[in-house]
Amino acid sequence: MTEPKRQMHLGVFVQAAGHHVAGWRLPDAEAGSENLDLIKRIAATAERGKFDLFFLADGLTTGKDAHPSMVARFEPMTLLAALAMSTSRIGLAATVSTTYGEPFHVARAFSSLDHLSQGRAGWNVVTTSYARSAANFSRGAHPEHDERYAIAREFVEIAKGLWDSWEDGAFVMDKSTGAYFDPSKLHLLEHEGKYFSVKGPLNSSRPPQGHPIIIQAGSSDPGQELAAETADVVFTAQADLEEAKAFYDGLKARLPRYGRRSDQLHVMPGVFPVIGRTEQEALDKLKLLQSWADPAASLALVSERLGHDISGYPMDGPVPELPLSDQLRSRSKLLADLARRENLTLGELVAIVASARGHWMVRGTPERIADQLEAWFVGGAADGFNIMPPYFPGGLDDFVDLVVPILQERGLFRTDYTGSTLRDHLGLTRPENRHVRSHG
Amino acid sequence: MTEPKRQMHLGVFVQAAGHHVAGWRLPDAEAGSENLDLIKRIAATAERGKFDLFFLADGLTTGKDAHPSMVARFEPMTLLAALAMSTSRIGLAATVSTTYGEPFHVARAFSSLDHLSQGRAGWNVVTTSYARSAANFSRGAHPEHDERYAIAREFVEIAKGLWDSWEDGAFVMDKSTGAYFDPSKLHLLEHEGKYFSVKGPLNSSRPPQGHPIIIQAGSSDPGQELAAETADVVFTAQADLEEAKAFYDGLKARLPRYGRRSDQLHVMPGVFPVIGRTEQEALDKLKLLQSWADPAASLALVSERLGHDISGYPMDGPVPELPLSDQLRSRSKLLADLARRENLTLGELVAIVASARGHWMVRGTPERIADQLEAWFVGGAADGFNIMPPYFPGGLDDFVDLVVPILQERGLFRTDYTGSTLRDHLGLTRPENRHVRSHG
Repeated sequence: MTEPKRQMHLGVFVQAAGHHVAGWRLPDAEAGSENLDLIKRIAATAERGKFDLFFLADGLTTGKDAHPSMVARFEPMTLLAALAMSTSRIGLAATVSTTYGEPFHVARAFSSLDHLSQGRAGWNVVTTSYARSAANFSRGAHPEHDERYAIAREFVEIAKGLWDSWEDGAFVMDKSTGAYFDPSKLHLLEHEGKYFSVKGPLNSSRPPQGHPIIIQAGSSDPGQELAAETADVVFTAQADLEEAKAFYDGLKARLPRYGRRSDQLHVMPGVFPVIGRTEQEALDKLKLLQSWADPAASLALVSERLGHDISGYPMDGPVPELPLSDQLRSRSKLLADLARRENLTLGELVAIVASARGHWMVRGTPERIADQLEAWFVGGAADGFNIMPPYFPGGLDDFVDLVVPILQERGLFRTDYTGSTLRDHLGLTRPENRHVRSHG
Repeated sequence: MTEPKRQMHLGVFVQAAGHHVAGWRLPDAEAGSENLDLIKRIAATAERGKFDLFFLADGLTTGKDAHPSMVARFEPMTLLAALAMSTSRIGLAATVSTTYGEPFHVARAFSSLDHLSQGRAGWNVVTTSYARSAANFSRGAHPEHDERYAIAREFVEIAKGLWDSWEDGAFVMDKSTGAYFDPSKLHLLEHEGKYFSVKGPLNSSRPPQGHPIIIQAGSSDPGQELAAETADVVFTAQADLEEAKAFYDGLKARLPRYGRRSDQLHVMPGVFPVIGRTEQEALDKLKLLQSWADPAASLALVSERLGHDISGYPMDGPVPELPLSDQLRSRSKLLADLARRENLTLGELVAIVASARGHWMVRGTPERIADQLEAWFVGGAADGFNIMPPYFPGGLDDFVDLVVPILQERGLFRTDYTGSTLRDHLGLTRPENRHVRSHG
């Protein structure tokens, strides 16, 4: 069997109490988004499975209604720095918001993580959706959707500039001459923009990857435009092949206007796998999970994602027509489309969302799951997938032990790492330093 | 021999290219503030020496004139998270500024580090001295000295409040009932102050230490007052026993007004040790180091610390009378006092500052160094010391292998750890959660 040239990329989206709201209750689940021992084993399993990356979401608020995986968790940069010590090949990607952060701090932390991990850092660039975050950051008002994306665009531009502060090889550390670094390889940024002014330089040498990998997850028009301009990977919530294909094609079509090729941006939809040795075992597992979903918590979760309180509507009735929330535009549209397409009752929508939270659910035997992933990958809807196990560690163990070997056998996924950095795994070239380019 | 009840505390102040500006040039020095392998060995050596803590300074700017250890370095929180994985007992303390940060982000990162390290996190609370930092953070003006301390005070108060967001034992994670946490143990902060408004709660459970250890390094009046109110450890630059004693007594005298006892705050001056098997070997090492000190770099360093450009003054003349810089008040006063007391020429002051950077230099055989440390410790000038080796790894190896055993033999320092957290090492009790206290 000859391997096809194009292979899929795989990430594990880690919410350590599981992606299903009740995943942590399964007998073989281990609880806790603050369980370091569990998280280290998750990273080791994904690395054993030759995954491209370990992906952490994040948020800047919590409360009584928060999902178990999100209510209290490690801060992503410190957690990934720790995992850089217990792993050697897998990429380490953290979500860090551009809405309540400083470009200098964020660029610096990712450069530091890239050095600590020898070139395995990824930054999931997000804007903070929830207006209540403003109350934790001394802000009266939360910026509206399109402005958040304008801020994000400038933020990423600054970070990329700061990463070019030092040319490669600037630190000569010559004991005989006393030259610690070559000052001609140090450059100021002198950024003066609409939202930020950042002089530079960064007090971190150029990251091993040149620039850490940029991931984006926004599916709105400004989100897609930002991704087309700046991202290496797009993580997206798609629940239907045709829509996923349309999203994929639309996003790739935006690339040429930024002088980029189709293979320079990887689209990786989220996948919520429910795996059984048999179809029945998978179905039973999903039913068990759904039996535990607290109706009130599920309602709160769906209300939060829709941006509207739906607790007053009858569960056996149709999904009500709700105005699309400005703050959560792409998410609320996704859910409304899903309900209309499949003619769901509100109760059914709530059950599906509480399970897969709007992502693509694949359910069944390992063979059937591999078939579905192959269909999307070959069908032009995805360059890979961000795997969202309903529970840990078993949900990932099953994927790595049962599904990955099938994908490998079909030549759809690597059987070993061929490079050492996340950029290598993704087949992306290291960006040249702008200052070398300009005077080269 | 019976051990005296009171023992000193030891930290290693890590600037990985060495504290001496040319320390990295010694034949057995290894260069690099971005050399993770070296830094891991430094932490392991300090832990083998039973040190209380590993201490990282920080800064938010760099440039052509920066000290080799500071020009490019790891971001402290990510570095310490990595070191939490390669060590098991030693405390891990990072400098993080309150001038260009958000209390929510900082409190969260330290809580995360405390969880990752199982109770070994310390926060060196500083205000950013250098006005040029503002240019990296989109600020037109840098706040003046006293206002920076007012901001710092409110910042620390918020952090302590956020660490009490969750009571101990809040996360019950009961699979049978589905209770992931007990909502009655979750508390909002609702802070509304002069500089910040932070609602909370923190999305991190209560740190293992209750509150990570608070370290302060400011020696100005507002700096000492902040320390008396909030700090567990004070790191200070003292070059003379009598002045160190006066500082020590003055600081301890401030404690009662905050209802605190003398043994609840440890004063740890910085010590720059130049160790030789013989007095001559130590002297030769210092001379070699000083022979490499670049006059221009030394001048720039001293000018920066004084807040005035002294490059125009004759090196063989007296230290000129300079107005005390507001921004760098305590540092510039320290240097002016040192020059007056020892009747130094400007060139001599520059040489000393370029060696020990205003800190206490101890030089000689291990016995002589132990004698000097004992004199300060027993003489009421210190509760311990923050060791600042001129170079790494040899400068620390010598201290741990040659000086520590003498201190241990004299009963002045522990022969093994008796607890597992940094708070344990420092003999400090775990603070009760304010919400438990208030309704208990």
